[in-house]
Amino acid sequence: MNLTHLDERHRPKMVDVSQKTATIREARASGIITMSPAAYEAIVQEQVKKGPVLQTAIIAAIQGAKKTPDLIPMCHPLLLSGVQCDIEEQPRSHSFKLLVTVRLSGNTGVEMEALTGVSVGLLTIYDMVKAIDKAMVIGPVQLEEKSGGKSGDFRRTDP
Amino acid sequence: MNLTHLDERHRPKMVDVSQKTATIREARASGIITMSPAAYEAIVQEQVKKGPVLQTAIIAAIQGAKKTPDLIPMCHPLLLSGVQCDIEEQPRSHSFKLLVTVRLSGNTGVEMEALTGVSVGLLTIYDMVKAIDKAMVIGPVQLEEKSGGKSGDFRRTDP
Amino acid sequence: MNLTHLDERHRPKMVDVSQKTATIREARASGIITMSPAAYEAIVQEQVKKGPVLQTAIIAAIQGAKKTPDLIPMCHPLLLSGVQCDIEEQPRSHSFKLLVTVRLSGNTGVEMEALTGVSVGLLTIYDMVKAIDKAMVIGPVQLEEKSGGKSGDFRRTDP
Amino acid sequence: MNLTHLDERHRPKMVDVSQKTATIREARASGIITMSPAAYEAIVQEQVKKGPVLQTAIIAAIQGAKKTPDLIPMCHPLLLSGVQCDIEEQPRSHSFKLLVTVRLSGNTGVEMEALTGVSVGLLTIYDMVKAIDKAMVIGPVQLEEKSGGKSGDFRRTDP
Amino acid sequence: MNLTHLDERHRPKMVDVSQKTATIREARASGIITMSPAAYEAIVQEQVKKGPVLQTAIIAAIQGAKKTPDLIPMCHPLLLSGVQCDIEEQPRSHSFKLLVTVRLSGNTGVEMEALTGVSVGLLTIYDMVKAIDKAMVIGPVQLEEKSGGKSGDFRRTDP
Amino acid sequence: MNLTHLDERHRPKMVDVSQKTATIREARASGIITMSPAAYEAIVQEQVKKGPVLQTAIIAAIQGAKKTPDLIPMCHPLLLSGVQCDIEEQPRSHSFKLLVTVRLSGNTGVEMEALTGVSVGLLTIYDMVKAIDKAMVIGPVQLEEKSGGKSGDFRRTDP
Repeated sequence: MNLTHLDERHRPKMVDVSQKTATIREARASGIITMSPAAYEAIVQEQVKKGPVLQTAIIAAIQGAKKTPDLIPMCHPLLLSGVQCDIEEQPRSHSFKLLVTVRLSGNTGVEMEALTGVSVGLLTIYDMVKAIDKAMVIGPVQLEEKSGGKSGDFRRTDP
Repeated sequence: MNLTHLDERHRPKMVDVSQKTATIREARASGIITMSPAAYEAIVQEQVKKGPVLQTAIIAAIQGAKKTPDLIPMCHPLLLSGVQCDIEEQPRSHSFKLLVTVRLSGNTGVEMEALTGVSVGLLTIYDMVKAIDKAMVIGPVQLEEKSGGKSGDFRRTDP
Repeated sequence: MNLTHLDERHRPKMVDVSQKTATIREARASGIITMSPAAYEAIVQEQVKKGPVLQTAIIAAIQGAKKTPDLIPMCHPLLLSGVQCDIEEQPRSHSFKLLVTVRLSGNTGVEMEALTGVSVGLLTIYDMVKAIDKAMVIGPVQLEEKSGGKSGDFRRTDP
Repeated sequence: MNLTHLDERHRPKMVDVSQKTATIREARASGIITMSPAAYEAIVQEQVKKGPVLQTAIIAAIQGAKKTPDLIPMCHPLLLSGVQCDIEEQPRSHSFKLLVTVRLSGNTGVEMEALTGVSVGLLTIYDMVKAIDKAMVIGPVQLEEKSGGKSGDFRRTDP
Repeated sequence: MNLTHLDERHRPKMVDVSQKTATIREARASGIITMSPAAYEAIVQEQVKKGPVLQTAIIAAIQGAKKTPDLIPMCHPLLLSGVQCDIEEQPRSHSFKLLVTVRLSGNTGVEMEALTGVSVGLLTIYDMVKAIDKAMVIGPVQLEEKSGGKSGDFRRTDP
Repeated sequence: MNLTHLDERHRPKMVDVSQKTATIREARASGIITMSPAAYEAIVQEQVKKGPVLQTAIIAAIQGAKKTPDLIPMCHPLLLSGVQCDIEEQPRSHSFKLLVTVRLSGNTGVEMEALTGVSVGLLTIYDMVKAIDKAMVIGPVQLEEKSGGKSGDFRRTDP
């Protein structure tokens, strides 16, 4: 199988998408951060009051999704049409699951934008809680589904 | 336990570090990306020739570490003294493990820079191989060790 | 009234505009900076020679308008079609009025880009003159008019 | 009076501060945004629930303060030691007052960082409420006080 | 002849392109860096192994092309469709020639993106080799050809 | 000779400078852009009035010098102490020579910042005049002198 981001001399390139059709594209990615009970409680208790940790994570995720072409060398600049985040609390495992959904009317997929948003959002949670728990673990971070574009739809089928 | 990044009215703040002492600080983080055998082979085969996927990931990781204060809202701007990356091939699990070590002579820790570098590097691998495998999974991303600073050293003790 | 930038769970989101029609949109914003007579004279005298303070402000305003989605968390990235600035000298009040007009062929308004350009331009004037006068006041900064898009035209009707 | 940001040929320059002493410096700036009663209520009501508009503004203000050298052409890059924000509700005038305090252990003042943080924070409020009220007015934005550095302390004495 | 980037009052402006037609546009620029035989050999020898200097230059060139509107004040933001690089070794003159080709489906030309990519790529080579040779010379950097757009095609005809 | 930016496995790294001493460092770089007589006259004539092309180039050069660590992958973030530009008109060759001098009190050299400033400034001139002349040539861009740091001073000795 060939890697599309390398040319015939094995040099990285930004793939030419000028001939692709502009369609509505959407991608949703998810990621989990797991922490100690104490750290989890510190966030949830704050959330009852004002939720600033999770709010900050959501804002960072949206900004992070917009910065994707600046972070990932071969990514195309894109005019994201919309970004929406959701956070699920998972009290049994002391973890939070961040979901980022990105929409675009354009000619490349937005998987990377969704995945980058998730990663930046989870790193933001880590940053704000690391004084309590440095052993937090980020992952799995993964694509959940995508639609639009020539390569067809994708829907994760893991258990 | 209190969250140091929130003030007494629960508003996010960038913690004042002007009184902290400048010392040599170091942090090392790691992260894994796991993929299909076909995707793994495509990277490794390229690597035999020129290794552009892993090289691109390393460069993106270094650039990503430098961008941390732009990505993580409450992070301080820092003058990173050095960033070094390593990638381990794990053929049995079809995965790559990226390690990023960040050094600083300054007055805040560099855990976030190491973790951000790892995340951006792994996202770059995802991007360059996603035409072959969209189901790749990123994680665990975690701090391995840190030294320097008042909060003491940290060394992960997981099995 | 509802805030469109919050979802049904009161979380910030970047509104989906993928269904909006691309039209020609234009927004013009203005802002004033008022200063001491000595500071005002220092700028105007320079201007007779080369105008570098006001030129620098104009360039910063244009660059600032382009940076809007990087600064304002819920703003969409946009391909600005044109930015034009004008500065009026107001000798009686020792102030300068900066006007920034932004045009776009696209599917969201450009009010924020015009207002951001004005703010960054005025901050640049402040920066270059602050050695003479730290008490300068910025404002009012406001939208003057906009056209294009579904929400209709706007024209400020203040006295 | 001379403009320190221009050289003897009237060309803009970034002033050499390599000989200045590193001291603790602090600056506090404020700015007001005034809006219609309906817009004011929409924010305050949300705030009772989760406060996302004002939280987003605070995060944008902190990020904006960090971006100052990228926005204001002659500003030096700085390692901000801390940024703290406060928002006062002013129900009689349907306005919010944003205060941003910036600290630095370094060799230039941080007035511009405080003022830029205020401006970006207020623009973010504008952005999130503009669907309700496009006639909102930003200003006065001004320096309240500064300390540290050779030029001495400043404290605004307006009524 | 008039300078299109200045308005009638000689103030810089970002030219309005909202009426221009979106077509496929392409530009190719080139640049040369010349160095000592020792520096040249150090790069080429590495290249036999892994080529990290030239790989890093290519990645920096692609990222640099994407950053053009952030670097060049009057440049429009653009959604680059593709970027491809090539490097020619010129052993007789101990120099490398970097070629960057940029494609866009849009309504302004991409000459600046190609030229900026070349400049950033060559600066990256300089950076990585400057410990061996500080006297390296960059240039000529020039447009080789462009196509698409109303102003017609261009093809350099130098000897 | 070894390339300091590669580790023992030939992977790019950001060299560790945490043990280097902070001293005053300075670097001066130059670059030339040569154009047609018509393009040269258009700039010079404007300059008699307001000089906006060369002013814009100077501002872009200063901003570009600040962006060096964002553009050149292995460059360290630095707190530039000062940046000063000069432009020489060379009417016989229809060219402009841009000189950028960068100062730093820190622990790495600033050659790259001076060279990057020169490159971005010249690209800005190209951009603003390209409607008249697309065949302009940039170069030679080169380091003129540097001082400070362990590797000693450098002064170009070309004829």
